Amino acid sequence: MELLRVTYRLEGDPSGAEARAEAIALEQTVEVPRVVAIRDAFIANEIVGRVEAIEAASDGARLATIAYPVAATALDPAQLLGVLFGNSSLHADVSCVDFDPPPSLCEALRGPRFGIAGLRALTGVGERALTCTAVKPLGHTPAALADLLRTFARAGIDVVKDDQGLADHPFCRFEARVSACLAAAEQVADETGHRVLYVPNLIGTPERVFAQLRFAEQHGARAVMVSPLLLGLPTFWELCHRHASVPVLAHPCLGGAVRYAPELLFGKLLRLYGADAVIFVGDAGRLGTPRATGAAIAANLRGAWHGLVPSLPVPGGGIELDNAAEVVRFYGRDAMLLVGGSLQVEEGRTLERSRALVEAVRKASVVS
Amino acid sequence: MELLRVTYRLEGDPSGAEARAEAIALEQTVEVPRVVAIRDAFIANEIVGRVEAIEAASDGARLATIAYPVAATALDPAQLLGVLFGNSSLHADVSCVDFDPPPSLCEALRGPRFGIAGLRALTGVGERALTCTAVKPLGHTPAALADLLRTFARAGIDVVKDDQGLADHPFCRFEARVSACLAAAEQVADETGHRVLYVPNLIGTPERVFAQLRFAEQHGARAVMVSPLLLGLPTFWELCHRHASVPVLAHPCLGGAVRYAPELLFGKLLRLYGADAVIFVGDAGRLGTPRATGAAIAANLRGAWHGLVPSLPVPGGGIELDNAAEVVRFYGRDAMLLVGGSLQVEEGRTLERSRALVEAVRKASVVS
Repeated sequence: MELLRVTYRLEGDPSGAEARAEAIALEQTVEVPRVVAIRDAFIANEIVGRVEAIEAASDGARLATIAYPVAATALDPAQLLGVLFGNSSLHADVSCVDFDPPPSLCEALRGPRFGIAGLRALTGVGERALTCTAVKPLGHTPAALADLLRTFARAGIDVVKDDQGLADHPFCRFEARVSACLAAAEQVADETGHRVLYVPNLIGTPERVFAQLRFAEQHGARAVMVSPLLLGLPTFWELCHRHASVPVLAHPCLGGAVRYAPELLFGKLLRLYGADAVIFVGDAGRLGTPRATGAAIAANLRGAWHGLVPSLPVPGGGIELDNAAEVVRFYGRDAMLLVGGSLQVEEGRTLERSRALVEAVRKASVVS
Repeated sequence: MELLRVTYRLEGDPSGAEARAEAIALEQTVEVPRVVAIRDAFIANEIVGRVEAIEAASDGARLATIAYPVAATALDPAQLLGVLFGNSSLHADVSCVDFDPPPSLCEALRGPRFGIAGLRALTGVGERALTCTAVKPLGHTPAALADLLRTFARAGIDVVKDDQGLADHPFCRFEARVSACLAAAEQVADETGHRVLYVPNLIGTPERVFAQLRFAEQHGARAVMVSPLLLGLPTFWELCHRHASVPVLAHPCLGGAVRYAPELLFGKLLRLYGADAVIFVGDAGRLGTPRATGAAIAANLRGAWHGLVPSLPVPGGGIELDNAAEVVRFYGRDAMLLVGGSLQVEEGRTLERSRALVEAVRKASVVS
């Protein structure tokens, strides 16, 4: 029987850890008292989770590993989330910190379709770290955003994504924005030979998101971005594996990483569901994630894992010109640096600042 | 200009609260430094959030209220989540504790279609609290679940839902389960005159969920349940307002309520999105929510709020025969008691225990 192993961190009194882990094993599968669950042999043997190990974390909290028969997940992207952390997420003193999917689950969910190699092929960047920024802020017209994209493209930035807050606003319609930015990218490609990868942000309910995807693909977009935690992971999965023919970048918006460990959510879950590139808070910048967490996320995204294609780590949040080289040295070449508003802080000097970023990443990649 | 007001709780050093609130106001809208945002008058005046108030909570944490121009949300169910708590959810020391939507947002999102009155009409329960339990555990065959449903129906339970862990498993297919349970409900209605409201659980990616809904409605289901946090709130919204013609119950699975305040998530957000009934942890049972939180959730679901139809509060998690009357006294008649596995703990006495629950709720409702 294939097992899905999940590790939970239990805060509070360690003496109760075994009973609490046992309660989680029931809660996440049958959600009835043990006496009810064990009346039926099939349920007792092939559905109920089993506590496999309880260990002490360095701070004294307990780490409980529970093995669930994979059958409980129905190999379904939504049901999997329920088994991982559904009702137990309601316990304030429990967090879900790691999981290990068996082969059948990896086959069902599939992971990235393009991953690092696909994104390197698409951008033509072979050997160095990639650069990325966003057209923003929200409130600009499509023409103003396209102007900004032209500036970044002329500076040699590899990937320019929409800000994740660019939706379908009356003052900046999705279709107008995507058309303008795609045309701007082509214009700079004709001028300079550098075809920036423009990545539109899709957002909305499923019918809107799938319609936005069709529009973007039909008009020449070669990649798209969504915030999987805004859309919901099951919608994200369906987008990746039933609708999209281009790579999909994942934005961490709403991924408040306290209850799912960030290494799990950004490093494993998004890769398993199909993100070709995952944006995460990878630096001690404005969102304050420890560097060790960033390193662990990147390791999870790129490491050998059940034969899944590696996802491209995209550290962001606090990367500036001054520390870009250090970020490349830290994450290595198989990474994409996402630099945001700091490219725009000096009015009239966005092109120069963007060029300086490109140069810093190129240099750091050569020596890294 | 219509404003969306959102309150955040800021842990940690109060002296930095103003600067942190200001940073949130930028992060949730333009996500660029202020110097970039204010270059454009439209962006400065009609997009950027403004800190309206910073107050001290009873424990010394700061409560910051930020007013966002509603235009930033694009009146879209996914973008709204981004504006409420998107990137700021990544700050471990920030939680989103309240929000107040302006009229245009309520009109766009619409809230419950049926609500308390619709569920009372559907169940024929006029004046008392309603009773609810679940067919479970996962692992049973459709026939075994239908047997259990017959038992609960004969006992007079008003609503029997699927356990939220019942998906489309090879050993218990969605279609077979729903058909068997609907037929069982009709059988008992013919026998006794009491037509229990059977509520199938829908789960999966959007295409699967919408197909399950069509099957359920075509085969006579008069209500359905989903876990909005598993599906993603935008998919939940589309289900309620674009697909479903029957009431939708919301299950709290994966709603780990620590970063969104539970009063906000279960009391307001799910109502705004369209839940006709909201299951929440409303008792000091196995999931340990304080009673004051349950009371606040129920008040938010039922209270007058922007003209939205009231949602039916469904406290669950720890309700047993012994405390059912107390729960009715606490939540009043406009509530539905969700009792789970405890009805099944005495083998062979599920009918008697269910009847005792029904009787306890009837009696308590008369005096409450």
